[in-house]
Amino acid sequence: MDKNVSPVVVRRMPRYYRHLCELHDKNIDRISSSALAERMSLTASQVRQDFNCFGGFGQQGYGYNVTDLKAAIAEILCITGERKAILCGAGNLARALMSNFNFTKCGVSLVAAFDSNPSLFDVEMFGVPVHSISTVEQYVSAHSPDIAILTLPKSDAHKVANILVKCGVKGIWNFTGTDLELDDPGIPIENVHFSESLMVLSYQIDR
Amino acid sequence: MDKNVSPVVVRRMPRYYRHLCELHDKNIDRISSSALAERMSLTASQVRQDFNCFGGFGQQGYGYNVTDLKAAIAEILCITGERKAILCGAGNLARALMSNFNFTKCGVSLVAAFDSNPSLFDVEMFGVPVHSISTVEQYVSAHSPDIAILTLPKSDAHKVANILVKCGVKGIWNFTGTDLELDDPGIPIENVHFSESLMVLSYQIDR
Repeated sequence: MDKNVSPVVVRRMPRYYRHLCELHDKNIDRISSSALAERMSLTASQVRQDFNCFGGFGQQGYGYNVTDLKAAIAEILCITGERKAILCGAGNLARALMSNFNFTKCGVSLVAAFDSNPSLFDVEMFGVPVHSISTVEQYVSAHSPDIAILTLPKSDAHKVANILVKCGVKGIWNFTGTDLELDDPGIPIENVHFSESLMVLSYQIDR
Repeated sequence: MDKNVSPVVVRRMPRYYRHLCELHDKNIDRISSSALAERMSLTASQVRQDFNCFGGFGQQGYGYNVTDLKAAIAEILCITGERKAILCGAGNLARALMSNFNFTKCGVSLVAAFDSNPSLFDVEMFGVPVHSISTVEQYVSAHSPDIAILTLPKSDAHKVANILVKCGVKGIWNFTGTDLELDDPGIPIENVHFSESLMVLSYQIDR
């Protein structure tokens, strides 16, 4: 049913999830499509259409049960299990993620980090063991992490990404600011382009 | 002309810009709307419509001049000047931005950072002076930075953001993972939600 959902709709799902978590934290039991739409600067019909892509969850005249809808979206996003992730690159950005980012909320468990700086090898950083990047191939083959997070220099991005995918990594979270062209084009890549975000802000200022 | 451009179109502008920079770097002089569309997984008519929101830049039968279109988009995004930005919070994420992020490419110059940790005061970090967060109000009033980048703990986000806006900051780049509700709702805020990005990747894996 959800094979061909538009990327725009998929990208809204985590936003719905975030708002539903907030409603849940405020002990709000149910919400109408129009109230949810207003919170998210959408239209009620857009909200209903979005959920219809996944089978629809509302009840005419009642709206959505917050707990149920939150759980359903968590299932859709596959964040209820525990996927294993590794960090490739243990510099400032990796440390920011290790120390502050709530991986658990995304159904992800951070199992190891890799770097080329020998002074970091075989220590733990925020509870995460750091190893030599030269051992990453061996590690991935042995431990089968699902996700690789690329927080290494642009220049190493392609080489490392292709090794990881060859060894069975199923998805790449790419912070290197470069578009990856993988030997296996079927592997999902999620790019975090900081510059695009700053440019959107720049556009909005003084308008 | 561009007062009411849809946010979706605005959000594509930095992507166009990135692709045009890549074409420019490869010494490609011109590109058709269909070729540009294919690079970006859009349709040619979408590309033409997007640019028409800003007056249109192509020529029937010729396509787009890469250098001219790149320059026009840079103007639209207001990244040709030099806006001043400050970092509020000088932890790992701020350091990652200071050391690796190309602010200049976005028309932004990083002028100062602020933190609550006294061991960081009055030193330079990657060439950026760090001051006490308790002096940020005074600094903003005196130096009028355009953009504040929030890389501080969630718990301080609202308080600091409202102070900054009161002193004249024109836009907020928000990495705190919380939605800000400002006293002045007219100030643009660009949120970077890492969790939404990771959830989109999670959705795509195994589909």
